[in-house]
Amino acid sequence: MIVQTQYVRFDSLSLDCGATLSPVDVAYETYGELNRERTNAILILHALSGDAHAAGISHETGKPGWWDNMIGPGKGFDTDKYFVICSNVLGGCRGTTGPSSINPATGCPYALSFPVITIGDMVRLQNMLIDYLGIERLLAVAGGSMGGMQALQWTVAYPDKVAAAIPIATTARHSPQQIAFNEVGRQAIMADPDWNGGNYYGRRPPARGLALARMIGHITYMSDESMREKFGRRLRDKDRYGFDFSVDFEVESYLHYRGAQFVDRFDANSYLYITKAMDYFDLTNGSASLASVLEKTQARFLVISFTSDWLYPSYQSLEIVNALRSRNRDVAYCELNSNYGHDAFLVEVGEQTEIVRGFLARTFERLR
Amino acid sequence: MIVQTQYVRFDSLSLDCGATLSPVDVAYETYGELNRERTNAILILHALSGDAHAAGISHETGKPGWWDNMIGPGKGFDTDKYFVICSNVLGGCRGTTGPSSINPATGCPYALSFPVITIGDMVRLQNMLIDYLGIERLLAVAGGSMGGMQALQWTVAYPDKVAAAIPIATTARHSPQQIAFNEVGRQAIMADPDWNGGNYYGRRPPARGLALARMIGHITYMSDESMREKFGRRLRDKDRYGFDFSVDFEVESYLHYRGAQFVDRFDANSYLYITKAMDYFDLTNGSASLASVLEKTQARFLVISFTSDWLYPSYQSLEIVNALRSRNRDVAYCELNSNYGHDAFLVEVGEQTEIVRGFLARTFERLR
Repeated sequence: MIVQTQYVRFDSLSLDCGATLSPVDVAYETYGELNRERTNAILILHALSGDAHAAGISHETGKPGWWDNMIGPGKGFDTDKYFVICSNVLGGCRGTTGPSSINPATGCPYALSFPVITIGDMVRLQNMLIDYLGIERLLAVAGGSMGGMQALQWTVAYPDKVAAAIPIATTARHSPQQIAFNEVGRQAIMADPDWNGGNYYGRRPPARGLALARMIGHITYMSDESMREKFGRRLRDKDRYGFDFSVDFEVESYLHYRGAQFVDRFDANSYLYITKAMDYFDLTNGSASLASVLEKTQARFLVISFTSDWLYPSYQSLEIVNALRSRNRDVAYCELNSNYGHDAFLVEVGEQTEIVRGFLARTFERLR
Repeated sequence: MIVQTQYVRFDSLSLDCGATLSPVDVAYETYGELNRERTNAILILHALSGDAHAAGISHETGKPGWWDNMIGPGKGFDTDKYFVICSNVLGGCRGTTGPSSINPATGCPYALSFPVITIGDMVRLQNMLIDYLGIERLLAVAGGSMGGMQALQWTVAYPDKVAAAIPIATTARHSPQQIAFNEVGRQAIMADPDWNGGNYYGRRPPARGLALARMIGHITYMSDESMREKFGRRLRDKDRYGFDFSVDFEVESYLHYRGAQFVDRFDANSYLYITKAMDYFDLTNGSASLASVLEKTQARFLVISFTSDWLYPSYQSLEIVNALRSRNRDVAYCELNSNYGHDAFLVEVGEQTEIVRGFLARTFERLR
């Protein structure tokens, strides 16, 4: 399945901070066919470092999508049955307008003049895309981590436009620990002199800072156990310690590699904006309780968490589940057994596939 | 109890890397009185950021010691009964020779020409101090985190010189996750242009890098739960989000403060050397098993861990306990209930005091 990213431009987007962005481009991909009744559309929502290329093989890069194991013919999100859409988030750096985009008012990249955005803003833009595609109501919104936050936001912002939501390994609001990890990542970027107050486009980007942020991220995405299984205390290419400050352990080598790799495909300012949006996200948004906010949702929910995910622990999913149950919303909760930590939502395909497939089928059945 | 740090110089110290350091200064403090039989001496071993000032009020700074709640008259380490010693570790920056010390061969600070050291080297130097103080056998060695590693190393390196060991919130070897967190801290320091290959003495130190390393550290020292209790999602000094990249949340403000505070009292190169020593530490040291290494110990053990400590989780303490039990060593294990995460060993005074006091009293009784 060779896929090509598509692009659409919207005149303007009103943001939670009060600013208006104009124009706004959105990069998106679609997989499968929209049925005649336009009732089989599923919007997939990506996490911090994802993009519009969720499935299939990219025409441009030849690479599979970031959730290709879950989206495709016969897979969890079955493209033989459903029309699947994924777009790059607002603030991103993979085709949708973000801090690296050209500000039409100046002819230069926005850099830090890009307004600070929210998960609500991301979803408002996705809703414009859905309207543009002629879809009145989504069969489902689904995503892990920050993708799950967007899924939750969809059910609250557009309750009549979402039949089902699948928030995975996510939370209704970041805990101080989650905020803290994001903040050290941001500080690592901003401490890099090449960051230069955000003005590095056309020059050397803040590669060390961004790599460092990514290294911190990767530690939090894995579990203690999966790291022990994957790396142990194995040394990289020595039979003894190096007695210097170069890489000794395989785990160090892995983190350096992942950090360096990330720099080639991601914009440091996008990292700042997107992590800030995650930290600001609070589904209660000043309301009395999560339950009172979720009461007005109309979607069926399938909430999934993973036992070894310590970055988005199960208690955060249970908070959502309990709030929904307290208001008699339709919610199923699955805590899946996994050693993979937060990464589990990307790699634990087997059980997720079965659960998602069944949930989507029942939802689709009820719509008829 | 006003205390004054004392200093002693040793001619030379042989290191695990093969190098010899000469001379070597040691900063230390003592509390209480050594009895006539010289049988009541306890060596306290500090963690990554500690120093010789463990108890009492410093004559120089007016500040209490880092474990003053546990050491003193009537406290867990009762200075009415015991003679308590604490020294700054090798590689440190608080009086004991380390990378910021003057290399007599050049007249300049060692910086990165300081040899890479190990926990074994630290303990070898402590043993010289104990000899110098005329103590043939220690009643106990005790410490948390890296202090616990030194306590374990003491029981293996000098089995006949330690009657008891109290390793707290520690491990027989760093896991890949622990190595990974240290490595990102080191990378943060080395990425700071002010680090300048380690040559910053007399100039501006790598303050941002060291602060960043400390911020990462502090996240790992707290528990998710204690952070939620302490900070929640409270904003620092606003009633709404700032919509910029300055500090929004109290947790961010706290980390910035702790990071900045650390820079005033700690040397960045010491941070590199000491974290590397922790990562290299492996009590098995290539042996077949931890049990076979611990078999030759003669000390009684009191191993303590804390329920919410995810940086040095209880399973690591249990690994030590099970290895000792498998060889019929005398070991008591206490997993204490606490929300404070790894910081618990510094703040959970109540139960620790009772357990340590009883354990020391029984050990002392048996020596008679």
